[in-house]
Amino acid sequence: MAGEFALIDRYFVRPTPSAVLGPGDDCALVQPTPGMQLAVTTDMLVAGTHFFPDTNPLNLGWKALAVNLSDLAAMGSKPRWATLAGALPAVNEEWIGKFAEGFFACAAEYGVDIVGGDTTRGPLNLCITAFGEVDPGRALRRDGAKASDLIYVSGRPGLASLGLAHLQGKVLLPEPWRRLCQTALEKPRPRVALGQRLLGIASAAIDVSDGLLADLGHIAKRSGLAAAVKLVQLPHLPKGTTHEAIPRALALDCQLAGGDDYELCFTVPPLLNLQLAAIATELELPLWCIGQMTAGEAGEVTVFDPDGLAIDFDHRGYDHFG
Amino acid sequence: MAGEFALIDRYFVRPTPSAVLGPGDDCALVQPTPGMQLAVTTDMLVAGTHFFPDTNPLNLGWKALAVNLSDLAAMGSKPRWATLAGALPAVNEEWIGKFAEGFFACAAEYGVDIVGGDTTRGPLNLCITAFGEVDPGRALRRDGAKASDLIYVSGRPGLASLGLAHLQGKVLLPEPWRRLCQTALEKPRPRVALGQRLLGIASAAIDVSDGLLADLGHIAKRSGLAAAVKLVQLPHLPKGTTHEAIPRALALDCQLAGGDDYELCFTVPPLLNLQLAAIATELELPLWCIGQMTAGEAGEVTVFDPDGLAIDFDHRGYDHFG
Repeated sequence: MAGEFALIDRYFVRPTPSAVLGPGDDCALVQPTPGMQLAVTTDMLVAGTHFFPDTNPLNLGWKALAVNLSDLAAMGSKPRWATLAGALPAVNEEWIGKFAEGFFACAAEYGVDIVGGDTTRGPLNLCITAFGEVDPGRALRRDGAKASDLIYVSGRPGLASLGLAHLQGKVLLPEPWRRLCQTALEKPRPRVALGQRLLGIASAAIDVSDGLLADLGHIAKRSGLAAAVKLVQLPHLPKGTTHEAIPRALALDCQLAGGDDYELCFTVPPLLNLQLAAIATELELPLWCIGQMTAGEAGEVTVFDPDGLAIDFDHRGYDHFG
Repeated sequence: MAGEFALIDRYFVRPTPSAVLGPGDDCALVQPTPGMQLAVTTDMLVAGTHFFPDTNPLNLGWKALAVNLSDLAAMGSKPRWATLAGALPAVNEEWIGKFAEGFFACAAEYGVDIVGGDTTRGPLNLCITAFGEVDPGRALRRDGAKASDLIYVSGRPGLASLGLAHLQGKVLLPEPWRRLCQTALEKPRPRVALGQRLLGIASAAIDVSDGLLADLGHIAKRSGLAAAVKLVQLPHLPKGTTHEAIPRALALDCQLAGGDDYELCFTVPPLLNLQLAAIATELELPLWCIGQMTAGEAGEVTVFDPDGLAIDFDHRGYDHFG
């Protein structure tokens, strides 16, 4: 059975061309681009809380890094480096090999060097810290929205939680939607290119990890504003799902409160929104205007139905200790 | 019962004067000093593996950060920022409050701003990532030792593991040594000032976390050298312990293979060692010359007794999956 150091060497030490010194010393050494700001994010993923213990380790490896890159994307920063710390209940080299394969595939896809880490024994737990660079003063924060800014979301929020509902047996998705939703859940694509293209355009941004309304609520709260979302402007879930197979209440729940989408929700001053069509085309990624920021109670998000009536919807995202 | 966000706000959001943007957004933003290199380290601490589940949370908070600052110290870097991710089995506000108190006491002592984090539910697990700055090309690495460089260690390696032996009932330490050893175990002081003073003097350095011989072995291996340690030159454990209360074999085991000391082990070219006495005086920290690097099999560490005979000692540090 391989020891800790041999395991680390075999699976987690890869070339780190963008680092001065990679894994194997007390610290990694990196040379930040002079003058740039560093965006730093850390996420802890726990078996049973964030993923099923029997999740395909290939997908888990991808997702563990992807959710951190999503945070970097939400700031508009360019991903550079990451560290990985993991507790494992036992040595299962096949599992570790698959996990590393998915993890490094995501790192390669987004140009991130894994510069360091820590491996230990314990209940399955993965903690990743990621670093990106952004021009000083340009980062997309949550607190920059202004009243009358338009609210946008990328992609199709709700797919990941529909995929989860399918895995949980709450709904039976027909193909190809099952595959589409399950891919959204298991192998999310952080919107890194979008985040960087929104610099100078978006006034605020967040990634949709806790649910669309909850995350929009964070922008609203930090910006001291309320938000109005028009249900009819939300991207439909794929045709053939909502109308035939998916109960309406579940679809709405997934769209408005489903976590794990890792799309970007952002606000844009009127007129600047004219640039978004070109960005959507360039990135081949739909961008939907779903509402508007308004003066009102800070953090309050109201959803309006097609008749302009406020919908009573109180599922406000996932809270680990709520 | 407080929710996740309220908990984070109450205990873990403190002023971060050295950051552009602290906790509460998708990422923290920091402005690295232009031209400086960034040293990055991450450590995961698991209940039952790294600490007793009933450890005083005040000490645990201190130590969780201190072990990371020790890695920064071993590179000679100046600590700047850290992130904290934690999984907790349940909300125990008293525990969390005490943990935060110890954690932020260590942060304040060493001038570190806690710029971000993540809180979730799960088996008790703490993951900290810390960042320090160091002049390009000057960081103390493990691979810089040369044959004939002298080997040094700070403080008194072995105190922490003697303290652990006491807690485990393997030995009964008399006062004041019990207190001294238990403090070394529970509230280690990372050698941050020493690390920075060794820039330009030490050729290689490591912090003693896995045990003196094991960690010296890492320097030897990465430098392509062997190391010779003279037992008689090791700092004695406090008088009254080794001779009266502590079995000789246990004392030796603690000194040579005890983990958790967080002293620095480093190599210094002959002649440059003349500067160490002044540094020891300035920092009020004993620095012991315990041997010399030699040509030989890379990574081999040999301990010699007072008669110049090699001692058979095969306990080579802690390996979580060995």
